[in-house]
Amino acid sequence: MIARTRLALNTATLGHNLPGHGAGWPVERVIDACAGRGFGGIVFWRGELAGRARAVGERARAAGLRVDGLCRTPYLTGPDAASDDDLRAAVDDAAALGAPVLTVVTGGTETGTVGLQASRARLADRLAGLAEHAGGAGVRLVLEPLNPMFGGNRTVIFTIADALSVCEASGVPDLGIAVDVYHVWWDGTLAASCAAAGGRIAGLHLCDWMRDTSDMLLDRGMMGDGVADIPAIRAATEGAGYTGPVEVEVFSRRWWAADPGHVLDTIVERLPGC
Amino acid sequence: MIARTRLALNTATLGHNLPGHGAGWPVERVIDACAGRGFGGIVFWRGELAGRARAVGERARAAGLRVDGLCRTPYLTGPDAASDDDLRAAVDDAAALGAPVLTVVTGGTETGTVGLQASRARLADRLAGLAEHAGGAGVRLVLEPLNPMFGGNRTVIFTIADALSVCEASGVPDLGIAVDVYHVWWDGTLAASCAAAGGRIAGLHLCDWMRDTSDMLLDRGMMGDGVADIPAIRAATEGAGYTGPVEVEVFSRRWWAADPGHVLDTIVERLPGC
Repeated sequence: MIARTRLALNTATLGHNLPGHGAGWPVERVIDACAGRGFGGIVFWRGELAGRARAVGERARAAGLRVDGLCRTPYLTGPDAASDDDLRAAVDDAAALGAPVLTVVTGGTETGTVGLQASRARLADRLAGLAEHAGGAGVRLVLEPLNPMFGGNRTVIFTIADALSVCEASGVPDLGIAVDVYHVWWDGTLAASCAAAGGRIAGLHLCDWMRDTSDMLLDRGMMGDGVADIPAIRAATEGAGYTGPVEVEVFSRRWWAADPGHVLDTIVERLPGC
Repeated sequence: MIARTRLALNTATLGHNLPGHGAGWPVERVIDACAGRGFGGIVFWRGELAGRARAVGERARAAGLRVDGLCRTPYLTGPDAASDDDLRAAVDDAAALGAPVLTVVTGGTETGTVGLQASRARLADRLAGLAEHAGGAGVRLVLEPLNPMFGGNRTVIFTIADALSVCEASGVPDLGIAVDVYHVWWDGTLAASCAAAGGRIAGLHLCDWMRDTSDMLLDRGMMGDGVADIPAIRAATEGAGYTGPVEVEVFSRRWWAADPGHVLDTIVERLPGC
């Protein structure tokens, strides 16, 4: 049973509060709707902040919510890799927001390479370089492994074990790892990998894997609607000692079409089964 | 360097020779086109045989090709699981064709369950039941783990390690495992898992993972066009002692639109890089 105070909304679940995705509620309305339902925290996306990260963070805390994180860095590897300045700007946004965690999605494989070794080596190097700036800003970088279907252009790490090996190669002691149900539900080594990662486990993202996933990006399920064993995944993180926020992140055209208040009510209703 | 005699065409690469997929060449023309280019073998799909499995097998052998396998069983698990009779019929088709190997795609998760444990237990049971019939028919069952994006509705095994654990649970000594580049290219534990599987490694399927895979099913790459480290994957199978057929299986709308002769020439041309 997850305490309601651990529950956080990832705003992607309501379509990033952006017009054309979901109902387009203003960020203040999302904050109040979460606080009113007893959510403990909220996680924003950079595109929603529009230069007012500090004000949004203060508004969330004034409403009684923790700001649990910010999504996400631009890519660190592959042909679309961002400059060092752009990476540091993402850290600065997290710091201004007062978010303790900045999620890292790695980017794809390095141009002209095959396999993952060269890309992971570059990833570790760039993380080591960014970590100093992040440490100074009080922001923890957290790697999120993605489902192997996103290999090639979005990520070069697919499992908690992959992420842990990059953490170790980077030499960054507090580099964290996020466990997202959608990405790792299928991994039979999850409990062992989380245990090996220990204190590096720094996030648990809830959603569900729909049996007939029809769209790689925008067909995530609400907890309880799919085939992931969510309590087992939660237990794997707790076995590693993780007691932090539990963030609901459902990218779904179906849920974006629903009333945001109903989406939030459904999250609260499903929490005891997680 | 893979010897040309190991090279086999999986007919899916030309659109299963079926009208509407690829050029719709009759199976005899496909056989002759492969034999003429020095392919060593060919792997058929059940839908192409249309009750003449024995004749097609004889025709292939008369042209100088091995028949290396048949794709595939209906599902063993999940709501679309086939009856025992339907599973045995797939074995009988392989036997009539003279194919030493029948590929097994498991099917999805069992209705009313979450996670994979219950589904894998049922899978092991059904494989044990089918193995007796297969053994009597001289057909080896070979499990093919699929990319995790196919979890839920098409498969309950995602890695060579998953497949090995099902093999062991089934108690079937000669149950094999196929290593398909598309499905396992991302797996950092591949070499170790293949070594652990040893003599169970019973197939190597070549294609490539395109950096920007746009369609889960029909956007596979030709070897050399993507980001998979194919020589490393081949080496992993050879480290396990595998020296059998190397089967090219490219499901791709792009390649289906090309002239089949050009597709076959391209395969031959790319083989030295594999």
